[in-house]
Amino acid sequence: MSREHDIFELGLERRQANYRQLSPLDFLSWAARTFRDRTGVVYGDRRYTYREFETRCRRLAGALAKMGVGRGDTVAIMSPNTPPMLEAHYGVPMAGAVLNALNIRLDPASIAFILDHGEAKVLLTDTEFAPVIREALARTSRPVRVVDIVDPAAPGERIGEITYEELLETGDPDFPYGPPEDEWQALSLCYTSGTTGNPKGVVYHHRGAYLNALGNALVFGLRPESVYLWTLPMFHCNGWTYTWAVTAVGATHVCLRKVEPARIFELIEREGVTHMCGAPVVLNMLIHAPPEVKRRFPRTVQVATGGAAPPSAVIAAMEEMGFHVVHLYGLTETYGPATVCVEQPGWKDLPLGERAAKVARQGVRYPTLGELTVADPNTPEPVPADGTTIGEVMVRGHTVMKGYLKNPTATDEAFRGGWYHTGDLAVMHPDGYIEVKDRAKDIIISGGENISSIEVENALYRHPAVLEAAVVAKPDPHWGEVPCAFVTLREGMEVTAEELREFLRTQIARYKVPRHFVFGPLPKTSTGKIQKFVLRERAKQL
Amino acid sequence: MSREHDIFELGLERRQANYRQLSPLDFLSWAARTFRDRTGVVYGDRRYTYREFETRCRRLAGALAKMGVGRGDTVAIMSPNTPPMLEAHYGVPMAGAVLNALNIRLDPASIAFILDHGEAKVLLTDTEFAPVIREALARTSRPVRVVDIVDPAAPGERIGEITYEELLETGDPDFPYGPPEDEWQALSLCYTSGTTGNPKGVVYHHRGAYLNALGNALVFGLRPESVYLWTLPMFHCNGWTYTWAVTAVGATHVCLRKVEPARIFELIEREGVTHMCGAPVVLNMLIHAPPEVKRRFPRTVQVATGGAAPPSAVIAAMEEMGFHVVHLYGLTETYGPATVCVEQPGWKDLPLGERAAKVARQGVRYPTLGELTVADPNTPEPVPADGTTIGEVMVRGHTVMKGYLKNPTATDEAFRGGWYHTGDLAVMHPDGYIEVKDRAKDIIISGGENISSIEVENALYRHPAVLEAAVVAKPDPHWGEVPCAFVTLREGMEVTAEELREFLRTQIARYKVPRHFVFGPLPKTSTGKIQKFVLRERAKQL
Repeated sequence: MSREHDIFELGLERRQANYRQLSPLDFLSWAARTFRDRTGVVYGDRRYTYREFETRCRRLAGALAKMGVGRGDTVAIMSPNTPPMLEAHYGVPMAGAVLNALNIRLDPASIAFILDHGEAKVLLTDTEFAPVIREALARTSRPVRVVDIVDPAAPGERIGEITYEELLETGDPDFPYGPPEDEWQALSLCYTSGTTGNPKGVVYHHRGAYLNALGNALVFGLRPESVYLWTLPMFHCNGWTYTWAVTAVGATHVCLRKVEPARIFELIEREGVTHMCGAPVVLNMLIHAPPEVKRRFPRTVQVATGGAAPPSAVIAAMEEMGFHVVHLYGLTETYGPATVCVEQPGWKDLPLGERAAKVARQGVRYPTLGELTVADPNTPEPVPADGTTIGEVMVRGHTVMKGYLKNPTATDEAFRGGWYHTGDLAVMHPDGYIEVKDRAKDIIISGGENISSIEVENALYRHPAVLEAAVVAKPDPHWGEVPCAFVTLREGMEVTAEELREFLRTQIARYKVPRHFVFGPLPKTSTGKIQKFVLRERAKQL
Repeated sequence: MSREHDIFELGLERRQANYRQLSPLDFLSWAARTFRDRTGVVYGDRRYTYREFETRCRRLAGALAKMGVGRGDTVAIMSPNTPPMLEAHYGVPMAGAVLNALNIRLDPASIAFILDHGEAKVLLTDTEFAPVIREALARTSRPVRVVDIVDPAAPGERIGEITYEELLETGDPDFPYGPPEDEWQALSLCYTSGTTGNPKGVVYHHRGAYLNALGNALVFGLRPESVYLWTLPMFHCNGWTYTWAVTAVGATHVCLRKVEPARIFELIEREGVTHMCGAPVVLNMLIHAPPEVKRRFPRTVQVATGGAAPPSAVIAAMEEMGFHVVHLYGLTETYGPATVCVEQPGWKDLPLGERAAKVARQGVRYPTLGELTVADPNTPEPVPADGTTIGEVMVRGHTVMKGYLKNPTATDEAFRGGWYHTGDLAVMHPDGYIEVKDRAKDIIISGGENISSIEVENALYRHPAVLEAAVVAKPDPHWGEVPCAFVTLREGMEVTAEELREFLRTQIARYKVPRHFVFGPLPKTSTGKIQKFVLRERAKQL
């Protein structure tokens, strides 16, 4: 049937009354109306109701507009998880602009590159980072107006023209706001660390953030009475879009300047925290916190983790402490989480080892994603769901980035064949759950056999003396490549290479057992990721 | 900034990898993959896993496609809340077609009108309704292919060319499906009784149903482990879009052929029901059920009600029985619920009377709606939030119908000034909650069904003895409201209430026939208009 003669189209076009652009800004206006007097944001002794929170965001938007910031402009922010960081997630897009949250662990050169590449007009910066920002600004080739975020909890040098609180004073508390003209409009810009070359600017749009936030709320079971602790940096994919998801249900944001176990346990108890997110390294910090700072609480705290599969020892230790671990997987390019390891009804009765093996898988697609496949990267023909055949994880749908900023080549490459190519290698299990085996570049090919570095690392983590482990390929004249392990031991523990080798032979196939073991601390990126390219270089020298 | 020079647009257009049309069909493919072996649908002793449920829907789609059904075509269904009714909510749109679920209480003339007006190509009909459908089909002016849904629980005459189960056998169990070409495409068609003349066909689109379903899941706290009992007719706004919301979280649908208290209590206990919806009349039935059929259960069952405000006695009695009442408000034009009376933290400590007064209000907008206002219908200037000033409830946003089918005049009228005009009169309270005070039109809501007073009057006027007639709502403890007729007879003519009742049963649906008849002259204004407000007062005294 042609559309002209479709009775379901005639006179039934989009209008002002029945069509609206999707935007996470609607969540704030909803929460500010529905829960106006409920605590929206907690930071130390400061508490903002949802109405106060909204007003501060409107003031920020109004002040930015007065500075000439509008559609297509970028506002950068260098801040830990304090209220201004959260407010920027609303105030900046309210002004029509794009938020660029900087990784606070970056070096001046990287920051300068990002400020230039992202064309930031304004930079909001916590004074703790004045030294690194001052140096970064000296290297930028474009003018940037600087606003100092002054936090009495961490005093630092002032380098801006105005403080954040002074800036808010100049803004209209009733600044009108709503969705953008087009839901495809850019909302935020997140730079990936990238292992090679310059970082790439991942652009998010309003529609995708709206939908991923709703997916988060559903997957994580957020409710109006939930209390969310900000252990995950908001500069990571806008806090995996939880910056908007928590507001979407009217729950409470508990800000946290620094990830310190004592403070975390204290806040869980004092604020009645129900949900939090963090990389496994954060979970590890909690597990290994001194006994005197640990607390027990009368409810189970939900912890979503991602970035690496949670080892079974971590799952067990967290549960013992009163947490429940949810495993998410995704990339900056997918607004953070794109899959979740949904727990099936029978799992809770399984022995820990079996359960952990199931939970360590990356799982199934988010309900709001669209499509997920593990496939031959070129055809893209899905691999059989046999738990063995390796393919590339690919996704497409609602919550895949708009593309890389000013980088059409990288965008085209990432989206080739109509799918976003994650670069992660995985298998598809018979139950429809995916399990990531390696980054494409981290796979070790030894004597024609594929060795998953993750599999070997997981086996190493099962040894009680191992705190951290990374396995990379070492070129070998005979085998092509052989696995080489870099291991950090737990304090006070000792183990030899031969003992580890013996142990691994009970865990994995012989050909996967590393030939070489190196003990010592592991090199990491500013986001805490182990720098395998550094280790690969070291392995070559052995 | 012009869009051509916007760095956030250049090379960042929508592509196959990062753009997808919103559709509730995605919920089924998600649930069938995530919860393939979990029970998706229960009906008596029948149980379908989510994968079986999906396969049945795909078979239905394939079979319909073989019958030549495709985009722009209508498939009607006359069925209580059995699995075929639920399957039609997926199978019909999978085939690209539009689902038109008929109110099973309608009379043959209304059904014939709807089948003709909606241009139904296929009608799926439960054999219980063979007599009324046979009569309706005799009156239609277009050919309709009929499929018999044969339910052993309620045998009836066969009038179709094939049974539903035979039809499924002809369909491809792997029928490929996905979102429509355009998320604005029509998904379903729901006829409202309307206040004047013929019923109007409200058209829903895929995007709106997707978003309202997510709103439902959030507002009602649906989780994968939830069990939803189908006490709300699916022909009412597609079950207020819970047909899709329950699937969106992978919860279990428990079908129910007939709303009978004994059966409801039995299912709540047996299936572990956690959530259900229904008009206050359903709540009343449960409250007044004989003690021997009532059961106690170890958890609170959430009940969402709408169509009329729940009286405090109903709230108290339901709570006493182990339910928790959530008050929703909306119209067919808003995909069912558009507002929810969100309970604020302090309410649970209030005395019942005060709490009931708060819960009786229609509340705040759904998080997924867009905008809600109580305003002067003409300007539309919002009324002050004083709890006193009356205005019209107006909404606009994501979950407002596409419009009325083949009725541009009514569509334009409903959407005038950029808002959907509900025709309901309300106040705005200082806390931002709305409270509906009256219907602008003279709709009577009886047992959750809208009865147009004008339709009943028109039927009365067809009787030779009737000179004048006016029908108003009379408050009723069980039904909420019942129609009450005031009639002036022609001089020299005589007719009894029972004779009029008999006559009306040949003209309109049984539930629309007035319970009370009052004979005598009608009060009028000086210009000759019947004063309905006077009659409403009199009706109360009867």
